[in-house]
Amino acid sequence: MQFDIHKRVDVSLSGYSYSITIGSKILDEPQMLSSFVAAQQALIVTNETIAPLYLQRVRDALAGVQCDCVLLPDGEPYKNQESLWCIYDALINNGHHRDTTLIALGGGVVGDITGFAAATYQRGVPYIQIPTTLLAQVDSSVGGKTAINHALGKNMIGSFYQPKAVLIDTHTLSSLPDREFRAGLAEIIKYAFLAGGSLLTEVERLLHEGLTPAHPALNELIASCCRIKASIVAVDEKETGVRALLNLGHTVAHALEAYTQYQYWLHGEAVAIGLYSAAILSYHRGVLALETVQQVERMLLLAQLPHKIPNSFDLMQLKQLMSLDKKVKNGRLRFILIRKPGDCYLEDQITENDVYKALVASVEGI
Amino acid sequence: MQFDIHKRVDVSLSGYSYSITIGSKILDEPQMLSSFVAAQQALIVTNETIAPLYLQRVRDALAGVQCDCVLLPDGEPYKNQESLWCIYDALINNGHHRDTTLIALGGGVVGDITGFAAATYQRGVPYIQIPTTLLAQVDSSVGGKTAINHALGKNMIGSFYQPKAVLIDTHTLSSLPDREFRAGLAEIIKYAFLAGGSLLTEVERLLHEGLTPAHPALNELIASCCRIKASIVAVDEKETGVRALLNLGHTVAHALEAYTQYQYWLHGEAVAIGLYSAAILSYHRGVLALETVQQVERMLLLAQLPHKIPNSFDLMQLKQLMSLDKKVKNGRLRFILIRKPGDCYLEDQITENDVYKALVASVEGI
Repeated sequence: MQFDIHKRVDVSLSGYSYSITIGSKILDEPQMLSSFVAAQQALIVTNETIAPLYLQRVRDALAGVQCDCVLLPDGEPYKNQESLWCIYDALINNGHHRDTTLIALGGGVVGDITGFAAATYQRGVPYIQIPTTLLAQVDSSVGGKTAINHALGKNMIGSFYQPKAVLIDTHTLSSLPDREFRAGLAEIIKYAFLAGGSLLTEVERLLHEGLTPAHPALNELIASCCRIKASIVAVDEKETGVRALLNLGHTVAHALEAYTQYQYWLHGEAVAIGLYSAAILSYHRGVLALETVQQVERMLLLAQLPHKIPNSFDLMQLKQLMSLDKKVKNGRLRFILIRKPGDCYLEDQITENDVYKALVASVEGI
Repeated sequence: MQFDIHKRVDVSLSGYSYSITIGSKILDEPQMLSSFVAAQQALIVTNETIAPLYLQRVRDALAGVQCDCVLLPDGEPYKNQESLWCIYDALINNGHHRDTTLIALGGGVVGDITGFAAATYQRGVPYIQIPTTLLAQVDSSVGGKTAINHALGKNMIGSFYQPKAVLIDTHTLSSLPDREFRAGLAEIIKYAFLAGGSLLTEVERLLHEGLTPAHPALNELIASCCRIKASIVAVDEKETGVRALLNLGHTVAHALEAYTQYQYWLHGEAVAIGLYSAAILSYHRGVLALETVQQVERMLLLAQLPHKIPNSFDLMQLKQLMSLDKKVKNGRLRFILIRKPGDCYLEDQITENDVYKALVASVEGI
């Protein structure tokens, strides 16, 4: 029993709350999972990469209940209509009732699609997040945003639907490919600029030091990101206000992902480029110091993440894709800008020309 | 201006409320609709039967905002994945943002699928119900249950998502085919047995008299049904308790619809048979008097609705389809039974054998 050494972050919403448990080798504690499965059925959704590594452990934890499984292909291109229907078909063909529990075992793609299936199967069944990538552990598994992609736009179809629990086994990061680990660092860098202060200092220090899955500071870093997200989601679950700040870097990121049909970058890599673009847009607008743009660039380079838009890209088309962004309101693009670390805001006075100029600078660098 | 002569029913939920407005020729009052469209975009979803009759009037009411339209084929078989994706595609291809408004102009199929598209497009956009069938006016447009069908089960994919307003123009019933009108009477008969008392007396009297779309009592009857539904939804929006009573007759109805691939009966016709089955099951169980079973049968006959299961049906297969019903809990079938008019309850001690016996009697009559 290692309960005492796990970290716990509570997500308190009006009328509903759940906890995020963070610790190494949580998957080796079967009761951690089984205690959240209320009835006699469960369906695990995972992917072909994760299944050989961790599926059996999750199955073992659920011995005694009817446990079915859906294996999706790995990757963002499969966060789509077809995968979603695979889940519905498995639920219906195996006779799952409204008291079944869905379990998302994998990264952000598995988590988002499983959450959406749970939100909509029989008008809503419980689900549990077991994120196995750094990106999902610090960001996508927390907060109840669920979705699938449409060919023309990321996360265009989805809902707000909170999990019953989030179980973060940081030991799963040891099997994560290096590129995936670094993609997760992009969201950590996002949190660092959202929060500023000691978190930013600590993240930059750790990046200098070399942040690996085995680093002893990682659990606390993940918990810090979860705490920030939980505190924001607690006051604005449905993104009518402050929650939009969590989209720092994501307007450009989503357009880049749609432009490349979700095939070229990992989500975190697109976010890295989006963070740099957001910093440039903030600088162009006169609200951010050049040194901070350079700090963003420096940290992304330390994390070995891309930060510039490739010069072969059609920037007009990229701008066009952004006009579909969910943050557009009354026909105006809205961006999260940085005034200084720890002080970001939603700016709705951005012209198409401003965006184009920032994209050009994101190709060339400043 | 005829505002004063319209009836109004408020649906009050925790933290959210909206109104149902009932009146003749509401569609001739453009401000009734336009006042609920907050931003500069709207998408009307309707079907090929309704479009030639009423689409232009709705479009006229929205002159001045970007107004797009999706025309679905008419009928329950089209309440499916393909139709849902038609709506998403139209929204995305026409650049609809999170502040757009969806408008469901049609019967229950259009209302349910539009509501579900609204619930899930960009994680939720507002929508307005303009039901044009009797069934949708007394039942499906109110209460925020949205869904599409799966080949193996009715309404298996959906969510609870409330409209911004429900506008019931009872004059649209004058263009409704007689068979569709009678299908709506099945839900009215359901409400009559749920409520009992003066409503049951009045419905039976009106059925004897001959209830047509032009009958002066119809507006009040529709308002009565909406009031019952609103009062139940107000205390149990997500169907964790009393709301299940509204499913009286629906367990068998949904199985019949799936069995016939949604092609043979209108939903209300299947509900008519389901009501008779529920009455028989209640009688078999010893909780309902034979006279009331006969009263159910008599009222269904007066409404010229089917009430028996055709003897060509495979009752074992029908029973099998029921085991997928959303009301199944911990592996047990749950049925809404009638003790007496005005006193229905959820029974979870029904065996498979009980069900089979009731189905046999629903073929043969008692």
